[in-house]
Amino acid sequence: MSDAAHTAMWERLDLDIEAHDALLAVLGKFYGDIYLAQEGRLKGAEYLDFVLSEVHGLRIKELQDAKAAGKKIVGTFCVFVPEELTLAAGAVQVGLCAGAKAGTELAETLVPRNTCDLIKSFIGFKLARICPYTESCDLIVGETTCDGKKKAYEAFGEHVPMHVMEVPQCKAPCDRTLFRAELVRYKEALEQLTGQTITAEALAEATKVVNAKRRALQRLAALRAAEPAPISGRDALLVNQISFYDDPVRFTAKINELCDEIEARITKGQGVAPAKTPRLLLAGCPMAVPNWKLPYLIESSGAVIVGEESCIGARNTRDCTDETPGNLDAMLDALCDRYMKIDCACFTPNTERLDNIAAMARDLKADGVIHYGLLFCQPYAHEAMKVGKAMDAAGIPYLSIETDYGMEDAGQLKTRVEAFVETLA
Amino acid sequence: MSDAAHTAMWERLDLDIEAHDALLAVLGKFYGDIYLAQEGRLKGAEYLDFVLSEVHGLRIKELQDAKAAGKKIVGTFCVFVPEELTLAAGAVQVGLCAGAKAGTELAETLVPRNTCDLIKSFIGFKLARICPYTESCDLIVGETTCDGKKKAYEAFGEHVPMHVMEVPQCKAPCDRTLFRAELVRYKEALEQLTGQTITAEALAEATKVVNAKRRALQRLAALRAAEPAPISGRDALLVNQISFYDDPVRFTAKINELCDEIEARITKGQGVAPAKTPRLLLAGCPMAVPNWKLPYLIESSGAVIVGEESCIGARNTRDCTDETPGNLDAMLDALCDRYMKIDCACFTPNTERLDNIAAMARDLKADGVIHYGLLFCQPYAHEAMKVGKAMDAAGIPYLSIETDYGMEDAGQLKTRVEAFVETLA
Ligand code: SF4
Ligand code: SF4
Ligand code: SF4
Ligand code: SF4
Repeated sequence: MSDAAHTAMWERLDLDIEAHDALLAVLGKFYGDIYLAQEGRLKGAEYLDFVLSEVHGLRIKELQDAKAAGKKIVGTFCVFVPEELTLAAGAVQVGLCAGAKAGTELAETLVPRNTCDLIKSFIGFKLARICPYTESCDLIVGETTCDGKKKAYEAFGEHVPMHVMEVPQCKAPCDRTLFRAELVRYKEALEQLTGQTITAEALAEATKVVNAKRRALQRLAALRAAEPAPISGRDALLVNQISFYDDPVRFTAKINELCDEIEARITKGQGVAPAKTPRLLLAGCPMAVPNWKLPYLIESSGAVIVGEESCIGARNTRDCTDETPGNLDAMLDALCDRYMKIDCACFTPNTERLDNIAAMARDLKADGVIHYGLLFCQPYAHEAMKVGKAMDAAGIPYLSIETDYGMEDAGQLKTRVEAFVETLA
Repeated sequence: MSDAAHTAMWERLDLDIEAHDALLAVLGKFYGDIYLAQEGRLKGAEYLDFVLSEVHGLRIKELQDAKAAGKKIVGTFCVFVPEELTLAAGAVQVGLCAGAKAGTELAETLVPRNTCDLIKSFIGFKLARICPYTESCDLIVGETTCDGKKKAYEAFGEHVPMHVMEVPQCKAPCDRTLFRAELVRYKEALEQLTGQTITAEALAEATKVVNAKRRALQRLAALRAAEPAPISGRDALLVNQISFYDDPVRFTAKINELCDEIEARITKGQGVAPAKTPRLLLAGCPMAVPNWKLPYLIESSGAVIVGEESCIGARNTRDCTDETPGNLDAMLDALCDRYMKIDCACFTPNTERLDNIAAMARDLKADGVIHYGLLFCQPYAHEAMKVGKAMDAAGIPYLSIETDYGMEDAGQLKTRVEAFVETLA
């Protein structure tokens, strides 16, 4: 797309062109430093570079074309929103989780200062009119996961068309019943939005599409067990980030191609980092585009990241939805089963997460675990302490980091990460 | 009770005697400055003074005697735990919400630093072994209200016998179903604890006892509409605080006596503050004993508090449980109805709270509203912003204060409160 076409499209979306240009400039610079500067990158990363370079261009054009053809766009902030249902209603689902500091002052007119940067970011993006995804959405789906988001959606809902799903806090039978009812309520909201009834056939088809995407991501995750590490943690994170907003069928094909290339690389014993480079598992809060700060700090400190235990990572891809049920009710049960397996810190208790982290560390031959918590995120701050105890018990070196989207602490973080990595070498 | 008898009892409870002595000394000094120094106090306040002076003495002795007689003690942190059921099982319910900074360093080994002082306090009290109530409990009941408590109970549960009730986050029929199931689960936990089956007769009787307590507190609340204000906000808060741990029948009788005295005072046109003293409604987070900081600052700044819109106040006493149902199932339904009316900030949406605050301000002829949020309490921080907008719309002067249990900000808070009160005079 030409620059003029881009700008015309952004103007139609009523973006603040000046602020948006500034955001893209920062994003481009950041991407150049963190991604393009990497050595020994996969050829398949060209797809990632292209998608990222057109993140506010071609993909938005596709969404606009879809809208012109009568499709609806649904924005989400959490892996609890079942893409299977969204696709089955003929709508497009895009993840909106924002990873950049922007519009913070505006955001603080709607939510308290002591709010995590992820929340401030999606609110800031809306109020500052700089996110073409948000502006493309016909419906935005929230969920009652953490206090921060739950309450922020009340204020956010005065600015965008919202549907809030209730996610229960425990995993007893009555919680399952509640979430099952919420799936039906979301299904009905989609049907009302799109005017399209969700049939068993459509849901079966959509489930196949979403599962195929998950399997491609699982395949990528498993390949990272190889030594030397065949892909950087940054690139793998980017793959997971892109999985939230690219077309799922195209994305799946591209990631499978990337995996083919990685397999060939592994056969030849090639990797992105020398053998014996300390391997780290990153666990904790989701990292939305362009929140690459910590992965970059880690991988420029002599370590390589071999897995992401987060919602932009394993928590989103670990489980597939059962494809065998024959009727709609059974399919909704299967969806409920699948989503109630998510080991988010919003649940109490959430001990399966501790087991999952230990298993990932073992399977990926990680030398240590770094936990990432976003400042003011209470659920993950509590779990960071629990994960630390569990890693101690399992004899796995552990570092807990709490940070935000600012760059002020970058130097201090790098010192801490380097010191940690040194103990592993 | 003699000092020696006290100490022997505390030793049996395995308190840290030295740390506990220090806490009592601070509490006594604080109480003297904030309560005993008041002028024109009610005669009935002698009961309050006596209860407070024996807060770790006689009342604990009563609990120990009850235990010796085979009764169980149940501790709670939230008005969602139905005292009706606890009493119907023959157990004693005491509120544990702690309002003092103590054991903070120990608490921060279990919960993150960015946690509200109320949570740090109850954890600190346990880890520092200074709370005879906590040590007397046979069961402590938590609830999934805010992220902070929900996750803190996981760690706390490793130190005390815990039962966690799930409180839903919305008020749709499926939420009611979930909470109804949680009432049954709590009932079963109580039956297991006490070995006593909860019968319809026992629940009916317990409901009467708890409702009578609520009616006495409602009566007190309504009398505060009188001008001049017949009781200080500090004393009224203390009444509500004591309602959580004194014997309910004795307490009810004493508060009704206090109300008789207040009525006589009102007839004579007497009050605790001169006519025309600015009247304030305090709204927000609960204030547990001995968290009297803000009420004291307000009432020493030329204003008088006429109501507490909090869980140690109106949120706990506004609604009675229907006493008419004849069988146990219908009684549990009635309990569910009553508790699902609570307008805690943990719900989304929670717009009824805005209406309730406006109604309280009107009924109590308040000149303004001060919202109190505990630092790091996200649910009430969000609502503080919403209450502000609602008060603006209603033309009610409003001040939002966020603070903790520390005294460092007392001077600055006093300046802000004084400036606010001046605008009302
Ligand atoms: S961490 Fe929890 S709330 Fe956040 S996206 Fe994941 S499941 Fe949703
Ligand atoms: S990072 Fe934590 S506080 Fe922020 S939205 Fe996610 S779960 Fe909520
Ligand atoms: S404010 Fe909410 S969580 Fe706290 S005691 Fe009241 S109902 Fe419970
Ligand atoms: S004050 Fe707020 S954060 Fe603290 S326990 Fe109560 S609701 Fe939770």
